[in-house]
Amino acid sequence: MFIPIKNTKVYEQVIEQIKGMISDGTLKRGDKLPSERDLVQQLGVSRASIREALRALDIIGLIESRQGEGNFIRESFENGLVEPLSIMFMLNESKPKEIFELRKVMEIETAALAAKRISESELEVLKDLVNKMENSNDEEIKVKIDKKFHYTIAHASGNFVIFNILNTLSTLIDAFIKDARKEILRKDKNKNTINTQHEAIYNALKEHNPGEAATVMRKHMELIDENLISSKKTVD
Amino acid sequence: MFIPIKNTKVYEQVIEQIKGMISDGTLKRGDKLPSERDLVQQLGVSRASIREALRALDIIGLIESRQGEGNFIRESFENGLVEPLSIMFMLNESKPKEIFELRKVMEIETAALAAKRISESELEVLKDLVNKMENSNDEEIKVKIDKKFHYTIAHASGNFVIFNILNTLSTLIDAFIKDARKEILRKDKNKNTINTQHEAIYNALKEHNPGEAATVMRKHMELIDENLISSKKTVD
Repeated sequence: MFIPIKNTKVYEQVIEQIKGMISDGTLKRGDKLPSERDLVQQLGVSRASIREALRALDIIGLIESRQGEGNFIRESFENGLVEPLSIMFMLNESKPKEIFELRKVMEIETAALAAKRISESELEVLKDLVNKMENSNDEEIKVKIDKKFHYTIAHASGNFVIFNILNTLSTLIDAFIKDARKEILRKDKNKNTINTQHEAIYNALKEHNPGEAATVMRKHMELIDENLISSKKTVD
Repeated sequence: MFIPIKNTKVYEQVIEQIKGMISDGTLKRGDKLPSERDLVQQLGVSRASIREALRALDIIGLIESRQGEGNFIRESFENGLVEPLSIMFMLNESKPKEIFELRKVMEIETAALAAKRISESELEVLKDLVNKMENSNDEEIKVKIDKKFHYTIAHASGNFVIFNILNTLSTLIDAFIKDARKEILRKDKNKNTINTQHEAIYNALKEHNPGEAATVMRKHMELIDENLISSKKTVD
């Protein structure tokens, strides 16, 4: 149960109690929190403090406030890293290249993990994406296919945290580097190379060969890297 | 300048304006925010909304509230990912193994980056740490040396975001896996292997050989991985 609070920095303690209840399993994903009024009574603090705590939990994406229904622990924390990572990039004036480098670092070994764990149905999804990409001439569609390709591999890693960070990075790269993805896909000299590389990645995953998966993913990332460096106007 | 706000979800808009001012360079690290009273006037919203916004920014670590002095944009956002990542682990009931796996995925390619960029003075620090580790029998000290060794390599990657995430993971691993680090270092069969591996990593970095650095770091991570699997009581 909640424990009444007597101290300073009250809103932090409210947050700690709610986090504690998640940590020990009392509150689970999707659960409804007590009403603001009940929290005021149970914790013995002001309505303002309760509200500050709830707002903060809303901002960090831990709870969701539904109009007229109350506050709920979020079902998914999928976007929980977007805000803090983008703030970090802003505060440190990170160059997009730094963000892309983190993606590169993660994708290589994630491909190795995926090679160990990928399911037959995920392999089918990938094969379908490789075929569609080869047969498409529409850049918008190709950008979508490309994202789905990397998304599927991240998911196949079987590690939710890795999957989540890679998705966050994909969102941030789209926001920070804007049309870089499209430009890379548009260049004539890249078209065949990218298709060949995607196919090579698919084959390594199909053979469940982690070393090969990492090697071909590294080559793929290096190709994108070179393109980012050369397309100065979108990167620097 | 700030723009007066007329709408719902007021605290979110206050946050967006402050973030916007960081993004466009009006507010920089260490800068003082206007007082609560000034914000109320400039933005034309209630003191409660301003406070909710400021509390939320405090919680996510963007601003720092100094008693009697006011609110400042934080100089460092180093711990900005600890809270959201630990919430993610709690909500998804992530196994410590998943956290360690993320660290493994990142450390391997980070070693490759460090091989390209490490400075002479960082190499000296690493060499000193390798020597001290070989000559120490105190587990507490060895844990500290081990942490510093990996911290230095992460720093040598020259990528602040990677450095920051690896530090966050190190903090979380210590919190979630508790004494795993010490147990691994204590085991007799590991003692020589760990020293040899640290030396091999140092040598690869000294030779500025990215491929070799990644290879030896992978072996090192695999050794730790095996130990985590075998010490069931601290991991599952």
